[in-house]
Amino acid sequence: MPTSPPSASSPTAPLEFASVFARLSPHVKALDACLREQIQAFEPEVREMADYCIDTSGKRIRPALVFLSGWQDDAVSPALVKVAAVIELVHLATLVHDDIMDEAGLRRGRDTAVKSFGPEAAVLLGDALFAHALHLAAQFPTTAVCSAVGESTRRVCAGEIIQTMRRGTTAITREDYYRVIDLKTAELFRVSCHLGSQLGGYDDDFVAAATIYGRQLGIAYQIFDDLADFFGEEGKIGKTLGTDLVSGKLTLPLLELADALKPTERAALMSEITGQAATNMELRLRQLRELDIFDRVNEALESQLRKGERAIGAFAALPAVPRLLSLAEVLRAQVKLLQP
Amino acid sequence: MPTSPPSASSPTAPLEFASVFARLSPHVKALDACLREQIQAFEPEVREMADYCIDTSGKRIRPALVFLSGWQDDAVSPALVKVAAVIELVHLATLVHDDIMDEAGLRRGRDTAVKSFGPEAAVLLGDALFAHALHLAAQFPTTAVCSAVGESTRRVCAGEIIQTMRRGTTAITREDYYRVIDLKTAELFRVSCHLGSQLGGYDDDFVAAATIYGRQLGIAYQIFDDLADFFGEEGKIGKTLGTDLVSGKLTLPLLELADALKPTERAALMSEITGQAATNMELRLRQLRELDIFDRVNEALESQLRKGERAIGAFAALPAVPRLLSLAEVLRAQVKLLQP
Repeated sequence: MPTSPPSASSPTAPLEFASVFARLSPHVKALDACLREQIQAFEPEVREMADYCIDTSGKRIRPALVFLSGWQDDAVSPALVKVAAVIELVHLATLVHDDIMDEAGLRRGRDTAVKSFGPEAAVLLGDALFAHALHLAAQFPTTAVCSAVGESTRRVCAGEIIQTMRRGTTAITREDYYRVIDLKTAELFRVSCHLGSQLGGYDDDFVAAATIYGRQLGIAYQIFDDLADFFGEEGKIGKTLGTDLVSGKLTLPLLELADALKPTERAALMSEITGQAATNMELRLRQLRELDIFDRVNEALESQLRKGERAIGAFAALPAVPRLLSLAEVLRAQVKLLQP
Repeated sequence: MPTSPPSASSPTAPLEFASVFARLSPHVKALDACLREQIQAFEPEVREMADYCIDTSGKRIRPALVFLSGWQDDAVSPALVKVAAVIELVHLATLVHDDIMDEAGLRRGRDTAVKSFGPEAAVLLGDALFAHALHLAAQFPTTAVCSAVGESTRRVCAGEIIQTMRRGTTAITREDYYRVIDLKTAELFRVSCHLGSQLGGYDDDFVAAATIYGRQLGIAYQIFDDLADFFGEEGKIGKTLGTDLVSGKLTLPLLELADALKPTERAALMSEITGQAATNMELRLRQLRELDIFDRVNEALESQLRKGERAIGAFAALPAVPRLLSLAEVLRAQVKLLQP
């Protein structure tokens, strides 16, 4: 079943993002209610389509970051729910647009918006979702949420643009790689922790620390995702392996592989990236395993994660901190499941 | 020269939108400077692409509405310049996305963003422009601008979605037609007058009146645009005639034509809309002329325009009013140029 979502196919995994959400259950219920409420704001003729896009089946990592970084007690704060909804709507809008570009037909086990409504309507639906997110952000007493979300979204798009323009090119350094994942993935993680801790009433020192943690977790999460593209079991992670290589994206596993290969073999890999040669996936997957690329990439991931943990370590007594740290543990457990 | 912009090909037209801008010259200079400044806010890697999209060669009707509806004296107000820039950025973002959907290669005499950078980057660039517009909107002391612009953009997208989903369908009433143009075109005209008059310091009564005027002018402007699709001289308006019919869009001229035709002829027109029959453009253009469709549509346009003029008529002593009314006169002059 290549299309079933990861959570459905590994129900016995020891630590999953879903496990964090079990503890957040009343918050997630309030978030779902808030997202459902937003559908009413859309023009009647497009409500059904907006409803389709406001999918509540995702992992909701960004809302979890908002809730956990703003955690004070078990009470569900309406401000945190609203900002979590704003960020999730922005994320859903980017998914709608991503699926158009990737010509993806399925996401989370059902037809994508582009498959259901066509590319024209999907571009506009993504725009409408994003516009509504910003309208919702304007319901806060100050412009802080609008400003932060507007800026973050621009940065996410910039990261995606840079990645798109670089596809099939090989002059990519680790610095280039980190720059792109910092923008395209870590930015929304970062702003989730920033706004969460701020609206949770924490002081500037902790807000700054939580913001660093969010960013580092986002970078580590993207490295995990890039690792899963080569090291997942196809049945378990619910997708085809090696799509990044096929689409000409030089991610960290491939950068590490290039370094570990002899010059002639490395040149062959590069012509697969540029599309001059057909991808020899079987060979590349074997090389990735034989040259211990998993461990090298995992080290890089760990180093990013530890930077984040150090940033909030000094605030261990705050109720938000052990909860935030639990997300890093979940990520580690997920990485471990990929280990060859 | 089918690709040259209208203003370049009819330099001697008596009243053009450009003539309004001659009087607004210091404001437009300040707007251009503000838009150029925004490019610096984009990530260095995408700045050149953002620069390309922030095209300053358009008619700038929406900024003109902001300036004219907020007019108090000749001074250039920084708040009006900033809100004009926000609305123009949203408009430019929608153009970038429109050109992807229309597979347009040229706009204003040069390659579109989608032609220059590909559809993937163009989707993301439109998103980034829109995100930055909202970030800029958050620089006002209150959330009012963010809220209004976020909501208006959602409505513009909803209008475009409804239009897209209806393409090639024939069960469309005048009410349906007006609903779509109210959303897709009149909404940004409306919010331009709303925010312009409000930031210009006018009282609630005039703000409400100016908002109605903006909306009515927007509806009339779209009717003009739909008329120009059939009645322009190809050389003069710089585009092919009849594209709405070819793409299955039942605009007001076609609705009027359908009413004026005998049942069998009307059925033939409808099968051209649905794509079941090939378009007989020569016949349709002749029928549009012979059955006086221009006059009928122009009457509908006039009726919309007069509603707007009546709304602000009671405020004739305010400095904004004669200036706003001049835009209606420019539109009338433009419509007259189309008369067969």
